[in-house]
Amino acid sequence: MNRRIVAVFVSVAFTVPHAGAQTAAPGSREVPAHTVPVPDTVSPQMRAIVGAPINANWRIFPKSAEEWKAQVKVAAANAVQTLPALREYLHVKVEARKIDGVNAFVVTPEEIPPANRNRLLIHVHGGCYVNNPGEAATVEAIFMAGFGHFRVISVDYRMPPDAPYPAALDDAMTVWKAALKMAAPTNMAIFGSSAGGALTLSMVLRAKIENLPLPGAIAPGTPMADLTETGDSFLTNAFLDNVLVAPGTGCDARARLYANGRDLKDPLLSPIYGDMSGFPPAILTTGTRDLLLSNTVRVHRKLRQAGVEAVLQVYEGLAHAQYFRDAAAPESRETFEEIARFFDIHLGK
Amino acid sequence: MNRRIVAVFVSVAFTVPHAGAQTAAPGSREVPAHTVPVPDTVSPQMRAIVGAPINANWRIFPKSAEEWKAQVKVAAANAVQTLPALREYLHVKVEARKIDGVNAFVVTPEEIPPANRNRLLIHVHGGCYVNNPGEAATVEAIFMAGFGHFRVISVDYRMPPDAPYPAALDDAMTVWKAALKMAAPTNMAIFGSSAGGALTLSMVLRAKIENLPLPGAIAPGTPMADLTETGDSFLTNAFLDNVLVAPGTGCDARARLYANGRDLKDPLLSPIYGDMSGFPPAILTTGTRDLLLSNTVRVHRKLRQAGVEAVLQVYEGLAHAQYFRDAAAPESRETFEEIARFFDIHLGK
Repeated sequence: MNRRIVAVFVSVAFTVPHAGAQTAAPGSREVPAHTVPVPDTVSPQMRAIVGAPINANWRIFPKSAEEWKAQVKVAAANAVQTLPALREYLHVKVEARKIDGVNAFVVTPEEIPPANRNRLLIHVHGGCYVNNPGEAATVEAIFMAGFGHFRVISVDYRMPPDAPYPAALDDAMTVWKAALKMAAPTNMAIFGSSAGGALTLSMVLRAKIENLPLPGAIAPGTPMADLTETGDSFLTNAFLDNVLVAPGTGCDARARLYANGRDLKDPLLSPIYGDMSGFPPAILTTGTRDLLLSNTVRVHRKLRQAGVEAVLQVYEGLAHAQYFRDAAAPESRETFEEIARFFDIHLGK
Repeated sequence: MNRRIVAVFVSVAFTVPHAGAQTAAPGSREVPAHTVPVPDTVSPQMRAIVGAPINANWRIFPKSAEEWKAQVKVAAANAVQTLPALREYLHVKVEARKIDGVNAFVVTPEEIPPANRNRLLIHVHGGCYVNNPGEAATVEAIFMAGFGHFRVISVDYRMPPDAPYPAALDDAMTVWKAALKMAAPTNMAIFGSSAGGALTLSMVLRAKIENLPLPGAIAPGTPMADLTETGDSFLTNAFLDNVLVAPGTGCDARARLYANGRDLKDPLLSPIYGDMSGFPPAILTTGTRDLLLSNTVRVHRKLRQAGVEAVLQVYEGLAHAQYFRDAAAPESRETFEEIARFFDIHLGK
């Protein structure tokens, strides 16, 4: 750590009201304004990502369905531009496929080791339930297929403003039911990050409700598991996370489009409020700067309290879902190789 | 989350310079001054602990050996006062015992299940290498013995200003060598938090150097594994952690007394810089507000990179080592029951 920064920080402290200051509720912490440099404890590739400017859309709320769609379209087009190089780098092939009426992509790595030949992963993408339609859905699936050498089906589920809850979950469940005819459920895992992490958990809750077979494992990454914005890191990591930035803002507004007036504590919207007993083994991923760090650790504790085998990986310095931004970053490889190892232990062959 | 707080937070944001402001290095984050309430996602018992005033000693640096000792003595006396009730609550007995010349305490739970009869845990206490002499050393050992139903030996190692490095580690190793005559090494685990977490790791490094048998498992809690103050959470959690508060302050000054001029990157002082290959299975514990959150997750990643079985538990809202403050808090029970379960899986009988 830069000694100069430390010195500045400590000197700032002398002017700061401490706990118990009259303006704050008892026990509140007064955090002084301060500057936090890019950590030197992350890889050079991640330094660029962690140090990137704050998400330009973080408090831009489109005013109409057309404006939403226009914003989503621009972001998706940008994401899609990066895909050919990503697929080539990770030796992965992607083909669009309709599965029982639902748009999806089959993501296939060049090499599939014998142990993974009868295994299949189902991917539900993130994007605050509004972003990443079409091929933009496939980014994380390509990382998983490339680093983990699994076949993946990525669900291009319907989204608001046209199709709010339960369209996304319905589409994901349609694909899950179709997948049950392709592989043994114990040979399959479901994974996804952010809204996809929440959908992963909601799919298991729905499968329990519908008495469908459960997957052999799941990997909910930094799940948007609590749409009520409950959780300490919404405030403790505010303005440190350059992706979600702060609560009460962009991603939450998008999630409310999805909820469409429904109670945000409905477990199928906010799975933290669901019954997680009987869940399959789970591996969760987050970063120390993630606005959803609390969401992630709360889900981890809740799974453990329910007696579920659940492990947690927390990456130094990373903000929300930055572990699938740059395939050349060692943290990306580490994240997906850890998930692959976990799946290898828990899935049938 | 309180909606009012969110609204205040977002409105503050509009006046804040974002990344790229001229005063900050590229990629730095500008965090505005803000108030963070006590999280409602922790237990009522923990709310009192997380919301307690900031550690009064956090930037009080005694100027002489006598002043150090006086400060340490007051803190230790306060801790010792709480011990009779704690021992009674957790049904644990503590007896002082000299082991090959080293002061120690034998901590014995009222009930020891058959599986734990031939098992033994070695505890190295925390306190920035300066605090918690004598019986004050035993707090965490009492939690572990009480919730986990293991016999524990807690090492009351020598400390600065009288006895800097390597006295503490030497004493801990003397007890480890003696313990090797009491139980099979595979039936034993080493644990401790903060400075004790670092000592746990340093003991394994020393045992490797001295070709001594390693324990069957370890539980380094929020380890002070990097005395150079490297790690993002030193800044991201500053003023949120009411125990360690901010870098460049109290605990680090105390650790430098221990280092006594030695290179802070020496792996036996800062085990993050050591070779962790061959380490026994490890369970690490921290909280989302912990100033050593980064230290903890960096050690976790380093262990995993070395191929070690290592799991991480991160508790919502907790600052540094708050999981052994109140035995009635459900988070305390959960922490030590998780560690006990991990030991049960990995230790011989």
